[in-house]
Amino acid sequence: MSDARFSKIHIGDLQVPMREVRLTNGTSVRLYDTSGPSRTDRSAWGSPVTQLGAARRGVITKEMEFVAVREGMTPEFVRQEVAAGRAVIPANVNHPESEPMAIGRNFLVKINANIGNSAVTSSVEEEVEKMTWATRWGADTVMDLSTGPNIHDTREQIIRNSPVPVGTVPIYQALEKVGGRPEALSWEVYRDTLIEQCEQGVDYVTVHAGVRLAYVPLTARRRTGIVSRGGSIMAAWCLAHHRESFLYEHFDEMCALLARYDVTFSLGDGLRPGSISDANDEAQFAELRTLGELTKVAHAYDVQVMIEGPGHVPMHKIKENVDLQRELCDDVPFYTLGPLVTDIAPGYDHITSGIGAAMIAWYGTAMLCYVTPKEHLGLPNRDDVKTGVITYKIAAHAADLAKGHPQAQAWDDALSDARFEFRWEDQFDLSLDPDTARAFHDETLPAAPAKTAHFCSMCGPKFCSMKLSHEVRAGMAEKAAEFTRKGGSIYL
Amino acid sequence: MSDARFSKIHIGDLQVPMREVRLTNGTSVRLYDTSGPSRTDRSAWGSPVTQLGAARRGVITKEMEFVAVREGMTPEFVRQEVAAGRAVIPANVNHPESEPMAIGRNFLVKINANIGNSAVTSSVEEEVEKMTWATRWGADTVMDLSTGPNIHDTREQIIRNSPVPVGTVPIYQALEKVGGRPEALSWEVYRDTLIEQCEQGVDYVTVHAGVRLAYVPLTARRRTGIVSRGGSIMAAWCLAHHRESFLYEHFDEMCALLARYDVTFSLGDGLRPGSISDANDEAQFAELRTLGELTKVAHAYDVQVMIEGPGHVPMHKIKENVDLQRELCDDVPFYTLGPLVTDIAPGYDHITSGIGAAMIAWYGTAMLCYVTPKEHLGLPNRDDVKTGVITYKIAAHAADLAKGHPQAQAWDDALSDARFEFRWEDQFDLSLDPDTARAFHDETLPAAPAKTAHFCSMCGPKFCSMKLSHEVRAGMAEKAAEFTRKGGSIYL
Ligand code: SF4
Ligand code: SF4
Repeated sequence: MSDARFSKIHIGDLQVPMREVRLTNGTSVRLYDTSGPSRTDRSAWGSPVTQLGAARRGVITKEMEFVAVREGMTPEFVRQEVAAGRAVIPANVNHPESEPMAIGRNFLVKINANIGNSAVTSSVEEEVEKMTWATRWGADTVMDLSTGPNIHDTREQIIRNSPVPVGTVPIYQALEKVGGRPEALSWEVYRDTLIEQCEQGVDYVTVHAGVRLAYVPLTARRRTGIVSRGGSIMAAWCLAHHRESFLYEHFDEMCALLARYDVTFSLGDGLRPGSISDANDEAQFAELRTLGELTKVAHAYDVQVMIEGPGHVPMHKIKENVDLQRELCDDVPFYTLGPLVTDIAPGYDHITSGIGAAMIAWYGTAMLCYVTPKEHLGLPNRDDVKTGVITYKIAAHAADLAKGHPQAQAWDDALSDARFEFRWEDQFDLSLDPDTARAFHDETLPAAPAKTAHFCSMCGPKFCSMKLSHEVRAGMAEKAAEFTRKGGSIYL
Repeated sequence: MSDARFSKIHIGDLQVPMREVRLTNGTSVRLYDTSGPSRTDRSAWGSPVTQLGAARRGVITKEMEFVAVREGMTPEFVRQEVAAGRAVIPANVNHPESEPMAIGRNFLVKINANIGNSAVTSSVEEEVEKMTWATRWGADTVMDLSTGPNIHDTREQIIRNSPVPVGTVPIYQALEKVGGRPEALSWEVYRDTLIEQCEQGVDYVTVHAGVRLAYVPLTARRRTGIVSRGGSIMAAWCLAHHRESFLYEHFDEMCALLARYDVTFSLGDGLRPGSISDANDEAQFAELRTLGELTKVAHAYDVQVMIEGPGHVPMHKIKENVDLQRELCDDVPFYTLGPLVTDIAPGYDHITSGIGAAMIAWYGTAMLCYVTPKEHLGLPNRDDVKTGVITYKIAAHAADLAKGHPQAQAWDDALSDARFEFRWEDQFDLSLDPDTARAFHDETLPAAPAKTAHFCSMCGPKFCSMKLSHEVRAGMAEKAAEFTRKGGSIYL
């Protein structure tokens, strides 16, 4: 992307980043850009309350203005969406390096890339590289899910370098602090971990406060039990102590804490289905009802909220998830993992889940958590991160198109124009992954003249339908001219 | 797949092939198998009329019986579906090597893999290898779209070695015969080509008889004109001669010809949209109406028919395609290319189209024509063929699940059971691509004990949610036992 045909531009006082793609026909296209590093230092902007608190009081923050420029909307519209809780702007006051962005059904669909090491593999450097790589290809947020050694340092490096909001699941670090034994967890350990992460600049936190003691037995007859790490940790704690979840019981205190930093809740779906067989079951929806209840509590503290969703869901059961989430959770942003529409393709779960992700985003999900080809099999490497991001950019963009977003349609139109006019370089430059598109074309036709040729190796010169189509057009124009000359009354 | 855990079994008198996967827990799962070579020689079965003709006369052919075993249905149900035109069994009497299969909305969703060289690249051997490779991974039919040299020989090698029905687009060879000049085409050249291919054993032919002279101007203002090779060839012919399409005018003769061999029509969508912008436009639907009219003509000759569909279609416009096709074309099988739900990801069009394919199949499409990562960029190689096939197996299977197919659900359940019980080898063996799933797991945990370990590198041993979930289950069982011992009246 360092090519002269691309440039990163910064718009207005707030220096909102965009990627400008200059085409060979003299026009240019501006695309949303997440690649960083940021030119803004939000610490100078000053935000006394949460974005939700400000929006409710009628105040348009700099963050809202920034989002408005990025999304091509009015600042007032952004404010209204945030005030209604339909959108969130995850922006911890201690993460000034991040470029404000909005997550909400009336904005461009966003995608999240999970990074972070496990005890088995990876280093701090690798994880920071994955973050940079993910945002280069278009990740709108990253979650640091590290569970191995150096959780604090890994997170520090990621946050300080990240131009996008960073999310975490604080229970992972809390569990490390108590030696990996869920029953040894306590509210105090958890609270201290949360404070540590809020201080550090985490923008949103996944909290599995909906996994209540009474719901644990609902998972007993499931085919694949509890597949969320946080969910299984909390279920183990509830069962070991035979007590209500400390996250649920201390939820008000958490709200007060998050409000001080404007950290956004991502209320976790600890009981999401881990197989097609378990989709939309009672355990899942019981938890969702509780998340709806907690949403109201958080909103009372002016804390921003989004709700996490499944998981593994067959296509015909996807829409129900969105409809129920809207109804139960006051239409706050839905943030889903996939869903995977079948279980039978480990190694290709970016695709099984990309199908579900595109559909659920069209139905109204605001942010999609990517799934990489390594899902269920191992920790993703750099290439897997890229594949996951590109697949999810496709899903998100397909949903934007289906929702009628004008900017989304303009992008497709620009690429299709380039394709039909055999402006190969423009076609590559406008694609989600110019490197791959160019490399695939080079594989059979590497020579420079092929980049303006009126065919490619797929059909060959005699069978290029687009070339023939141009000839048909020329033929039609000629007939039309002939018709005019002859003064005839009908054409064809 | 040559591993001892897999075996190809043959069921009943007709030797219907199935793949049996033996699991480490002593059970086994039987899966539909397309890998060939066939054990059946259909020439001995004797079929005096077309499958449609037989079905209409109440006759259950051997082909229908074969299909019934493969799909787990009654032969009478198969006959009824074929008689109604809702399903086709493409089975040229001159292709005895093929194993009968059905394409219809009430059967498992099928997928087609396009192979065939272009003038720019590839050889006969490569194309035969691609065919074998495609059926190994699950292609239900293959289309030989060769346009380069040796069209006849390439096709001969493919048909003689193919255990699945072979489709072609005869106009490609006809065009080669007239030196690549569309205007030089004639009914006579086309008819002779069709006879040559019917004699050779082609099971279904794409015929763009719906591209009528009057529809050509409808494409003038399109963003991407005509993107079907056959469509652009016929449009060029119509315009050059300013005459109605010879395919349309000679359609009755074609029907009489195809009936003699029981070759199935695949009525081509020569005016399918080549960009999101052109989806569902007047040109596309005008042609579809004509295809509906031609369906009735073909049925009068007892010739089996399916209808080809687009193309590039945003998600919200997909369903209309299926609904209209059913209505206009008497519910004959719909056979769609993707559709691609966005134009902006060349290099990943297996994914952009896999999303659309899964959705359109759920809505009722009977067969999906795959798209490879090379779409729009070049001729696919062997790896691209595999990626395309696996992606489309995912889409087809996701649709089978969403349609409530019991065999489809059983497959997912078997894999999810293996996953939850940490039977890693079984999880791999039950996956669409065991090689890739195993290789990905090996990347971080290559040692043999890892194949029974209760975790993987994704979350690591302390954070494996499935392991924790088992502990939760054990905990619940213990509590339940305690409850029984104490004679208490409530649990939790
Ligand atoms: S040869 Fe085929 S794939 Fe290549 S540019 Fe022409 S129509 Fe497109
Ligand atoms: S470590 Fe995570 S991905 Fe691996 S088996 Fe356990 S739950 Fe599944």
